[in-house]
Amino acid sequence: MSYSAFEPAPGAVKRIVRDGEPDTVAVEEPLEIRVDGEPVAVTMRTPGHDEELALGFLYGEGLLEQAHAVGLTEDFAANTVVVSGPLTRRLDNRRFYTTSSCGVCGKGAIEEVALHGPAVAAGWHGTPLTRLLLASLPDRLVQPGFARTGGLHATGLFDSELKLVCAREDVGRHNAMDKVIGWALSHDLLPFQSAVLCVSGRLSFELVQKTAVSGAGVLVGVGAPTSLAVELAQERGITLCGFARGHRINVYTGSERLKDG
Amino acid sequence: MSYSAFEPAPGAVKRIVRDGEPDTVAVEEPLEIRVDGEPVAVTMRTPGHDEELALGFLYGEGLLEQAHAVGLTEDFAANTVVVSGPLTRRLDNRRFYTTSSCGVCGKGAIEEVALHGPAVAAGWHGTPLTRLLLASLPDRLVQPGFARTGGLHATGLFDSELKLVCAREDVGRHNAMDKVIGWALSHDLLPFQSAVLCVSGRLSFELVQKTAVSGAGVLVGVGAPTSLAVELAQERGITLCGFARGHRINVYTGSERLKDG
Repeated sequence: MSYSAFEPAPGAVKRIVRDGEPDTVAVEEPLEIRVDGEPVAVTMRTPGHDEELALGFLYGEGLLEQAHAVGLTEDFAANTVVVSGPLTRRLDNRRFYTTSSCGVCGKGAIEEVALHGPAVAAGWHGTPLTRLLLASLPDRLVQPGFARTGGLHATGLFDSELKLVCAREDVGRHNAMDKVIGWALSHDLLPFQSAVLCVSGRLSFELVQKTAVSGAGVLVGVGAPTSLAVELAQERGITLCGFARGHRINVYTGSERLKDG
Repeated sequence: MSYSAFEPAPGAVKRIVRDGEPDTVAVEEPLEIRVDGEPVAVTMRTPGHDEELALGFLYGEGLLEQAHAVGLTEDFAANTVVVSGPLTRRLDNRRFYTTSSCGVCGKGAIEEVALHGPAVAAGWHGTPLTRLLLASLPDRLVQPGFARTGGLHATGLFDSELKLVCAREDVGRHNAMDKVIGWALSHDLLPFQSAVLCVSGRLSFELVQKTAVSGAGVLVGVGAPTSLAVELAQERGITLCGFARGHRINVYTGSERLKDG
């Protein structure tokens, strides 16, 4: 089976029988990410682009800066990706939302992102951004697996000319973004200088966190943002847009980056 | 501020300014669950019903069987719930999707649920269940926070007469279900004998897992199920229904429990 961006990744969807008739569902299986023999994470994900998922996850956690620094071994049947080679810093049991000063709180979470993200959010040196252009991005986000199952999230990466350069799907919205960021890492595109990320669903803190660490200056979602997503986007100078549907879009932060039109 | 089921929980939504106009977003903040001084989980959640969330989480993990066995102390400002008292079994670093025999796989995940759930999935001794009745449940799922923000998931618990007895909202779909199950635990209703759970979104493995452990025989969702959700529901004798909208519903497993009509 050949793979193109207009087909789901191999193994991403599955035929089932429902009420005696054929149907198709999104595949969900655990993936274990191991670093030098030690399991560091297990995530429920949709198979396909597992190495990108591992790379993107480690990058987002501030554990890896360059793809060529590590080796990757995927065992598709065993749902495992083994990463070998030095990470940027040692793994610990940190939970990023905890700081000694404030206990568990959103402020601690935002400060932690600042520690591991690029010092300054990326600017924008490409096609002038308008609300209308940003509102059109979800319609250009290729989602072949969603079209067949209704059960997959997607993240798309748009370049400085707002051309879609990578799209990935997953049952987990954070995994879809990790895959895109992992793809970018393996193409030496990180941190981004002029990039827009677009997601098919709602905008959580975690998605803004991953966006911040990637350097993308703009994050567009089809759904609603959370309070902490808005706060982090504000803090990091990210243009955060939600409810992007048809010709309409809500701009929560960073509207100064947009032109009229 | 008085609280009723027709208002969001206190602290669940927040006023913001967007483009110079007032708007409302769902609140997302971390919550740390501590057991006897040790942190066992941090989850990004919507404030409100935090004690229920902690109870439901521990029940779903097979760590707690009765609410009165433990004490609960909530520190709303510090985003912490402290659980004191004996758990059913010791906490370990198990990851439920791993078994020694098969590595990381969906089959191991399903077997692990069997270890911690009730021996037999609950039957149904209430109002005869029809597709039309089940399809109507999402419309009866009260979602005051979603109505104001578009950014919250919900879980509803329906009793043997298909009356809504508890509904909870959260930015995390798993948290909304934990809150409902925690409410049920604190009312000595677990494991369920005749109960239907209804969720506002898609149907992941994790939601079917929590349903299985609760004993509810039926799970209805507005969105699509994943492959592993269908497999677990089949294994545990749960009636799993997706895409419940208006008069339509897809029944993936357990259709023998339904009557015509």
